[in-house]
Amino acid sequence: MNDEVVVLRYGHRPGRDDRMTTHVGLTARALGADRVILPDNAGQSAETIRDITDRFGGPFAVEQRDDQRAFTRNWEGTVAHLTMYGERVQDVEADVRADSVDEGTPLLVVVGGEKVPFDFYEEADYNVGVTNQPHSEVAGLAVFLDRLFEGAELEREWEDADRRVIPQETGKRVVDPDEAEAERAGDGE
Amino acid sequence: MNDEVVVLRYGHRPGRDDRMTTHVGLTARALGADRVILPDNAGQSAETIRDITDRFGGPFAVEQRDDQRAFTRNWEGTVAHLTMYGERVQDVEADVRADSVDEGTPLLVVVGGEKVPFDFYEEADYNVGVTNQPHSEVAGLAVFLDRLFEGAELEREWEDADRRVIPQETGKRVVDPDEAEAERAGDGE
Repeated sequence: MNDEVVVLRYGHRPGRDDRMTTHVGLTARALGADRVILPDNAGQSAETIRDITDRFGGPFAVEQRDDQRAFTRNWEGTVAHLTMYGERVQDVEADVRADSVDEGTPLLVVVGGEKVPFDFYEEADYNVGVTNQPHSEVAGLAVFLDRLFEGAELEREWEDADRRVIPQETGKRVVDPDEAEAERAGDGE
Repeated sequence: MNDEVVVLRYGHRPGRDDRMTTHVGLTARALGADRVILPDNAGQSAETIRDITDRFGGPFAVEQRDDQRAFTRNWEGTVAHLTMYGERVQDVEADVRADSVDEGTPLLVVVGGEKVPFDFYEEADYNVGVTNQPHSEVAGLAVFLDRLFEGAELEREWEDADRRVIPQETGKRVVDPDEAEAERAGDGE
Protein backbone atom coordinates (compact mmCIF):
# COMPACT_ATOMS: atom_id res chain seq x y z
CA MET A 1 0.00 0.00 0.00
CA ASN A 2 2.78 2.39 -0.89
CA ASP A 3 0.66 4.68 -2.97
CA GLU A 4 -2.37 4.75 -0.73
CA VAL A 5 -4.65 7.73 -0.21
CA VAL A 6 -5.77 8.07 3.40
CA VAL A 7 -8.38 10.46 4.76
CA LEU A 8 -7.91 11.60 8.35
CA ARG A 9 -10.84 13.16 10.17
CA TYR A 10 -9.76 15.59 12.87
CA GLY A 11 -12.21 16.34 15.65
CA HIS A 12 -15.47 14.62 16.52
CA ARG A 13 -18.19 15.35 19.06
CA PRO A 14 -20.15 12.15 19.69
CA GLY A 15 -23.83 12.60 18.96
CA ARG A 16 -23.59 15.98 17.28
CA ASP A 17 -21.00 14.98 14.66
CA ASP A 18 -21.95 11.34 14.06
CA ARG A 19 -23.56 11.86 10.68
CA MET A 20 -20.93 14.27 9.37
CA THR A 21 -18.12 11.93 10.39
CA THR A 22 -19.95 8.97 8.87
CA HIS A 23 -20.42 10.91 5.64
CA VAL A 24 -16.72 11.85 5.58
CA GLY A 25 -15.84 8.16 5.82
CA LEU A 26 -18.40 6.98 3.27
CA THR A 27 -17.35 9.70 0.84
CA ALA A 28 -13.69 8.70 1.28
CA ARG A 29 -14.65 5.10 0.46
CA ALA A 30 -16.95 5.87 -2.48
CA LEU A 31 -14.56 8.34 -4.11
CA GLY A 32 -11.37 6.34 -4.18
CA ALA A 33 -9.52 6.64 -0.88
CA ASP A 34 -8.07 3.43 0.57
CA ARG A 35 -8.54 4.14 4.26
CA VAL A 36 -10.16 6.53 6.69
CA ILE A 37 -8.79 7.37 10.13
CA LEU A 38 -11.38 8.51 12.64
CA PRO A 39 -11.01 9.76 16.20
CA ASP A 40 -11.27 7.21 19.00
CA ASN A 41 -14.61 8.58 20.11
CA ALA A 42 -16.22 8.09 16.68
CA GLY A 43 -17.01 4.42 17.16
CA GLN A 44 -20.54 4.65 15.88
CA SER A 45 -19.41 6.20 12.61
CA ALA A 46 -16.65 3.63 12.26
CA GLU A 47 -19.19 0.84 12.68
CA THR A 48 -21.52 2.29 10.04
CA ILE A 49 -18.70 2.65 7.50
CA ARG A 50 -17.49 -0.90 8.14
CA ASP A 51 -21.03 -2.18 7.74
CA ILE A 52 -21.41 -0.44 4.36
CA THR A 53 -18.04 -1.84 3.27
CA ASP A 54 -19.14 -5.34 4.26
CA ARG A 55 -22.26 -5.03 2.17
CA PHE A 56 -21.13 -2.97 -0.83
CA GLY A 57 -17.51 -4.08 -1.08
CA GLY A 58 -13.96 -2.94 -0.66
CA PRO A 59 -11.13 -2.98 -0.06
CA PHE A 60 -11.52 -0.03 2.32
CA ALA A 61 -10.11 0.21 5.82
CA VAL A 62 -11.52 2.06 8.83
CA GLU A 63 -9.12 2.86 11.65
CA GLN A 64 -9.56 4.71 14.95
CA ARG A 65 -6.76 6.64 16.66
CA ASP A 66 -6.35 9.43 19.16
CA ASP A 67 -2.96 10.72 18.01
CA GLN A 68 -4.10 12.69 14.95
CA ARG A 69 -1.46 15.39 15.35
CA ALA A 70 1.49 13.04 15.79
CA PHE A 71 0.17 10.79 13.04
CA THR A 72 0.07 13.73 10.63
CA ARG A 73 3.50 15.00 11.71
CA ASN A 74 5.05 11.55 11.20
CA TRP A 75 3.29 10.82 7.90
CA GLU A 76 5.81 9.61 5.34
CA GLY A 77 4.41 11.15 2.23
CA THR A 78 2.39 14.17 1.22
CA VAL A 79 -0.14 15.90 3.49
CA ALA A 80 -3.04 17.90 2.05
CA HIS A 81 -5.22 19.75 4.56
CA LEU A 82 -8.61 20.85 3.28
CA THR A 83 -9.55 24.30 4.57
CA MET A 84 -11.51 27.26 3.22
CA TYR A 85 -8.45 29.40 4.02
CA GLY A 86 -6.10 27.43 1.76
CA GLU A 87 -4.89 27.78 -1.78
CA ARG A 88 -7.46 27.31 -4.51
CA VAL A 89 -7.94 23.66 -5.45
CA GLN A 90 -7.90 24.51 -9.16
CA ASP A 91 -4.44 26.07 -8.67
CA VAL A 92 -2.78 23.28 -6.67
CA GLU A 93 -4.52 20.05 -7.65
CA ALA A 94 -1.93 19.21 -10.35
CA ASP A 95 0.93 19.70 -7.85
CA VAL A 96 -0.78 17.56 -5.22
CA ARG A 97 -1.40 14.85 -7.80
CA ALA A 98 2.21 15.00 -9.02
CA ASP A 99 3.45 14.72 -5.42
CA SER A 100 1.28 11.73 -4.55
CA VAL A 101 -0.68 9.41 -6.83
CA ASP A 102 1.46 10.13 -9.90
CA GLU A 103 4.70 9.12 -8.21
CA GLY A 104 3.39 6.45 -5.86
CA THR A 105 3.84 8.52 -2.69
CA PRO A 106 1.20 8.08 0.02
CA LEU A 107 -1.17 10.99 0.45
CA LEU A 108 -2.84 11.97 3.73
CA VAL A 109 -5.91 14.16 3.29
CA VAL A 110 -6.80 15.95 6.53
CA VAL A 111 -10.46 16.90 6.93
CA GLY A 112 -11.26 19.12 9.88
CA GLY A 113 -14.29 19.18 12.08
CA GLU A 114 -14.98 22.39 13.95
CA LYS A 115 -11.72 23.89 15.13
CA VAL A 116 -8.46 22.70 13.60
CA PRO A 117 -5.24 23.48 15.53
CA PHE A 118 -2.65 25.55 13.72
CA ASP A 119 -0.26 22.55 13.72
CA PHE A 120 -2.20 21.03 10.85
CA TYR A 121 -1.76 24.13 8.72
CA GLU A 122 1.97 24.00 9.35
CA GLU A 123 2.45 20.25 8.93
CA ALA A 124 0.53 20.24 5.64
CA ASP A 125 2.43 20.30 2.37
CA TYR A 126 -0.70 21.83 0.90
CA ASN A 127 -3.52 23.73 2.53
CA VAL A 128 -6.27 23.43 -0.06
CA GLY A 129 -9.51 25.37 -0.38
CA VAL A 130 -12.35 23.89 -2.39
CA THR A 131 -13.64 27.41 -2.80
CA ASN A 132 -12.73 29.94 -0.11
CA GLN A 133 -16.35 29.89 1.04
CA PRO A 134 -17.84 28.22 4.09
CA HIS A 135 -19.76 25.14 3.06
CA SER A 136 -19.18 21.49 4.02
CA GLU A 137 -16.13 19.38 4.74
CA VAL A 138 -17.94 16.49 3.04
CA ALA A 139 -18.45 18.52 -0.14
CA GLY A 140 -14.85 19.72 -0.07
CA LEU A 141 -13.53 16.19 0.32
CA ALA A 142 -15.71 14.94 -2.53
CA VAL A 143 -14.59 17.58 -5.03
CA PHE A 144 -10.97 17.22 -3.92
CA LEU A 145 -10.93 13.44 -4.46
CA ASP A 146 -12.78 13.63 -7.79
CA ARG A 147 -10.21 16.15 -9.04
CA LEU A 148 -7.23 14.30 -7.53
CA PHE A 149 -8.17 11.11 -9.34
CA GLU A 150 -9.48 12.98 -12.42
CA GLY A 151 -12.67 10.93 -12.33
CA ALA A 152 -10.88 7.58 -12.49
CA GLU A 153 -12.32 6.74 -9.04
CA LEU A 154 -15.76 6.48 -10.59
CA GLU A 155 -14.67 3.45 -12.60
CA ARG A 156 -13.57 1.48 -9.56
CA GLU A 157 -14.57 -2.16 -9.22
CA TRP A 158 -15.60 -3.40 -5.77
CA GLU A 159 -14.50 -6.70 -4.27
CA ASP A 160 -16.37 -8.97 -1.87
CA ALA A 161 -19.65 -7.09 -2.16
CA ASP A 162 -22.84 -8.95 -1.36
CA ARG A 163 -24.93 -6.49 -3.38
CA ARG A 164 -24.42 -4.25 -6.36
CA VAL A 165 -26.55 -1.37 -7.64
CA ILE A 166 -27.11 -1.45 -11.39
CA PRO A 167 -27.46 2.10 -12.81
CA GLN A 168 -31.00 2.75 -14.03
CA GLU A 169 -32.75 5.52 -15.92
CA THR A 170 -35.69 5.18 -13.54
CA GLY A 171 -36.15 3.18 -10.38
CA LYS A 172 -33.91 0.98 -8.29
CA ARG A 173 -32.12 -2.21 -9.14
CA VAL A 174 -29.94 -4.04 -6.66
CA VAL A 175 -28.49 -7.42 -7.54
CA ASP A 176 -26.18 -10.10 -6.35
CA PRO A 177 -22.73 -9.34 -7.78
CA ASP A 178 -22.54 -12.75 -9.45
CA GLU A 179 -25.75 -11.99 -11.29
CA ALA A 180 -24.34 -8.62 -12.35
CA GLU A 181 -21.21 -10.34 -13.64
CA ALA A 182 -23.27 -12.73 -15.73
CA GLU A 183 -25.28 -9.84 -17.13
CA ARG A 184 -22.20 -7.91 -18.11
CA ALA A 185 -20.79 -10.97 -19.83
CA GLY A 186 -24.09 -11.22 -21.72
CA ASP A 187 -23.69 -7.60 -22.87
CA GLY A 188 -20.41 -8.60 -24.40
CA GLU A 189 -18.47 -6.17 -22.21
CA MET B 1 -33.17 34.12 -14.20
CA ASN B 2 -34.01 32.00 -17.18
CA ASP B 3 -30.93 29.84 -16.96
CA GLU B 4 -30.86 29.37 -13.22
CA VAL B 5 -29.73 26.26 -11.40
CA VAL B 6 -31.88 25.49 -8.40
CA VAL B 7 -31.24 22.83 -5.75
CA LEU B 8 -34.31 21.33 -4.10
CA ARG B 9 -33.91 19.46 -0.84
CA TYR B 10 -36.57 16.82 -0.34
CA GLY B 11 -37.25 15.67 3.20
CA HIS B 12 -36.06 17.11 6.49
CA ARG B 13 -36.37 15.96 10.09
CA PRO B 14 -35.86 18.97 12.38
CA GLY B 15 -33.01 18.40 14.79
CA ARG B 16 -31.66 15.25 13.24
CA ASP B 17 -31.19 16.66 9.72
CA ASP B 18 -30.33 20.28 10.50
CA ARG B 19 -26.66 20.05 9.68
CA MET B 20 -27.07 17.92 6.56
CA THR B 21 -29.72 20.28 5.18
CA THR B 22 -27.55 23.30 6.04
CA HIS B 23 -24.61 21.67 4.27
CA VAL B 24 -26.75 20.95 1.20
CA GLY B 25 -27.68 24.63 1.04
CA LEU B 26 -24.16 25.94 1.66
CA THR B 27 -22.74 23.54 -0.92
CA ALA B 28 -25.35 24.68 -3.45
CA ARG B 29 -24.31 28.28 -2.81
CA ALA B 30 -20.54 27.72 -2.83
CA LEU B 31 -20.57 25.55 -5.95
CA GLY B 32 -22.55 27.72 -8.31
CA ALA B 33 -26.29 27.16 -7.83
CA ASP B 34 -28.49 30.26 -7.79
CA ARG B 35 -31.08 29.16 -5.29
CA VAL B 36 -31.91 26.43 -2.79
CA ILE B 37 -35.41 25.31 -1.88
CA LEU B 38 -35.79 23.78 1.57
CA PRO B 39 -38.76 22.18 3.27
CA ASP B 40 -40.96 24.43 5.41
CA ASN B 41 -39.71 22.76 8.59
CA ALA B 42 -36.05 23.53 7.88
CA GLY B 43 -36.17 27.08 9.17
CA GLN B 44 -32.98 26.81 11.17
CA SER B 45 -30.99 25.66 8.15
CA ALA B 46 -32.53 28.41 6.01
CA GLU B 47 -31.46 30.99 8.58
CA THR B 48 -27.87 29.73 8.69
CA ILE B 49 -27.56 29.76 4.89
CA ARG B 50 -28.99 33.30 4.68
CA ASP B 51 -26.59 34.44 7.37
CA ILE B 52 -23.58 33.03 5.47
CA THR B 53 -24.83 34.71 2.28
CA ASP B 54 -25.15 38.04 4.11
CA ARG B 55 -21.57 37.80 5.31
CA PHE B 56 -19.78 36.11 2.40
CA GLY B 57 -21.84 37.42 -0.51
CA GLY B 58 -24.28 36.42 -3.17
CA PRO B 59 -26.46 36.54 -5.06
CA PHE B 60 -27.96 33.35 -3.65
CA ALA B 61 -31.58 32.80 -2.68
CA VAL B 62 -33.00 30.57 0.05
CA GLU B 63 -36.65 29.61 -0.24
CA GLN B 64 -38.90 27.40 1.89
CA ARG B 65 -41.86 25.47 0.49
CA ASP B 66 -43.94 22.45 1.38
CA ASP B 67 -45.03 21.47 -2.13
CA GLN B 68 -41.81 19.76 -3.28
CA ARG B 69 -43.59 17.19 -5.41
CA ALA B 70 -45.84 19.62 -7.23
CA PHE B 71 -42.99 22.07 -7.61
CA THR B 72 -40.87 19.41 -9.27
CA ARG B 73 -43.74 18.21 -11.48
CA ASN B 74 -44.45 21.76 -12.66
CA TRP B 75 -40.82 22.77 -13.17
CA GLU B 76 -40.39 24.34 -16.59
CA GLY B 77 -36.97 23.09 -17.51
CA THR B 78 -34.80 20.08 -16.81
CA VAL B 79 -34.96 17.98 -13.63
CA ALA B 80 -31.94 16.00 -12.40
CA HIS B 81 -32.52 13.80 -9.37
CA LEU B 82 -29.40 12.65 -7.56
CA THR B 83 -29.65 9.05 -6.40
CA MET B 84 -27.26 6.17 -5.96
CA TYR B 85 -29.64 4.11 -8.13
CA GLY B 86 -29.36 6.43 -11.13
CA GLU B 87 -27.27 6.50 -14.29
CA ARG B 88 -23.58 7.14 -13.82
CA VAL B 89 -22.75 10.83 -13.62
CA GLN B 90 -19.79 10.38 -15.96
CA ASP B 91 -22.18 8.96 -18.59
CA VAL B 92 -24.92 11.61 -18.40
CA GLU B 93 -23.26 14.84 -17.28
CA ALA B 94 -22.74 16.09 -20.85
CA ASP B 95 -26.41 15.48 -21.67
CA VAL B 96 -27.59 17.24 -18.52
CA ARG B 97 -25.31 20.18 -19.30
CA ALA B 98 -26.52 20.35 -22.91
CA ASP B 99 -30.15 20.30 -21.70
CA SER B 100 -29.67 23.06 -19.14
CA VAL B 101 -26.81 25.51 -18.69
CA ASP B 102 -25.63 25.23 -22.32
CA GLU B 103 -28.98 26.22 -23.77
CA GLY B 104 -30.20 28.54 -21.02
CA THR B 105 -32.86 26.17 -19.73
CA PRO B 106 -33.44 26.19 -15.96
CA LEU B 107 -32.19 23.12 -14.12
CA LEU B 108 -33.71 21.72 -10.94
CA VAL B 109 -31.39 19.43 -8.99
CA VAL B 110 -33.31 17.27 -6.52
CA VAL B 111 -31.36 16.10 -3.47
CA GLY B 112 -33.12 13.56 -1.30
CA GLY B 113 -33.02 13.11 2.41
CA GLU B 114 -33.92 9.70 3.76
CA LYS B 115 -36.76 8.24 1.70
CA VAL B 116 -37.56 9.76 -1.66
CA PRO B 117 -41.00 8.94 -3.14
CA PHE B 118 -41.04 7.22 -6.50
CA ASP B 119 -42.65 10.32 -8.07
CA PHE B 120 -39.28 12.03 -8.11
CA TYR B 121 -37.69 9.21 -10.06
CA GLU B 122 -40.48 9.44 -12.63
CA GLU B 123 -40.62 13.23 -12.87
CA ALA B 124 -36.86 13.50 -13.33
CA ASP B 125 -35.41 13.87 -16.81
CA TYR B 126 -32.25 12.35 -15.37
CA ASN B 127 -31.73 10.14 -12.34
CA VAL B 128 -28.03 10.57 -11.69
CA GLY B 129 -25.72 8.51 -9.50
CA VAL B 130 -22.46 10.05 -8.31
CA THR B 131 -21.18 6.52 -7.90
CA ASN B 132 -23.74 3.78 -7.27
CA GLN B 133 -22.45 3.51 -3.71
CA PRO B 134 -24.06 4.78 -0.52
CA HIS B 135 -22.23 7.87 0.72
CA SER B 136 -23.53 11.39 1.21
CA GLU B 137 -26.06 13.59 -0.55
CA VAL B 138 -23.76 16.54 0.16
CA ALA B 139 -20.82 14.82 -1.55
CA GLY B 140 -23.00 13.81 -4.48
CA LEU B 141 -24.31 17.35 -4.94
CA ALA B 142 -20.78 18.77 -4.79
CA VAL B 143 -19.34 16.48 -7.46
CA PHE B 144 -22.43 16.90 -9.62
CA LEU B 145 -22.23 20.72 -9.59
CA ASP B 146 -18.46 20.78 -10.14
CA ARG B 147 -18.91 18.54 -13.18
CA LEU B 148 -22.01 20.37 -14.45
CA PHE B 149 -20.17 23.70 -14.49
CA GLU B 150 -16.84 22.09 -15.46
CA GLY B 151 -15.06 23.96 -12.68
CA ALA B 152 -16.20 27.40 -13.82
CA GLU B 153 -18.13 27.79 -10.55
CA LEU B 154 -14.79 28.03 -8.70
CA GLU B 155 -14.04 31.32 -10.47
CA ARG B 156 -17.22 32.99 -9.31
CA GLU B 157 -17.07 36.54 -7.93
CA TRP B 158 -19.23 37.35 -4.91
CA GLU B 159 -21.26 40.51 -4.55
CA ASP B 160 -22.15 42.41 -1.38
CA ALA B 161 -19.83 40.41 0.86
CA ASP B 162 -18.61 42.02 4.05
CA ARG B 163 -15.62 39.70 4.25
CA ARG B 164 -13.46 37.79 1.83
CA VAL B 165 -10.99 34.96 2.45
CA ILE B 166 -7.68 35.39 0.65
CA PRO B 167 -6.16 32.00 -0.30
CA GLN B 168 -3.00 31.30 1.72
CA GLU B 169 -0.30 28.65 1.68
CA THR B 170 -0.42 28.58 5.49
CA GLY B 171 -2.76 30.22 7.96
CA LYS B 172 -5.89 32.30 7.65
CA ARG B 173 -6.45 35.64 6.06
CA VAL B 174 -9.85 37.32 6.00
CA VAL B 175 -10.21 40.85 4.68
CA ASP B 176 -12.71 43.52 3.87
CA PRO B 177 -13.64 43.06 0.17
CA ASP B 178 -12.60 46.64 -0.63
CA GLU B 179 -9.16 45.94 0.75
CA ALA B 180 -8.97 42.74 -1.34
CA GLU B 181 -9.95 44.72 -4.42
CA ALA B 182 -7.18 47.25 -3.81
CA GLU B 183 -4.68 44.43 -3.31
CA ARG B 184 -5.64 42.73 -6.55
CA ALA B 185 -5.29 46.02 -8.40
CA GLY B 186 -1.81 46.33 -6.86
CA ASP B 187 -0.94 42.86 -8.16
CA GLY B 188 -1.72 44.13 -11.63
CA GLU B 189 -4.50 41.57 -12.08
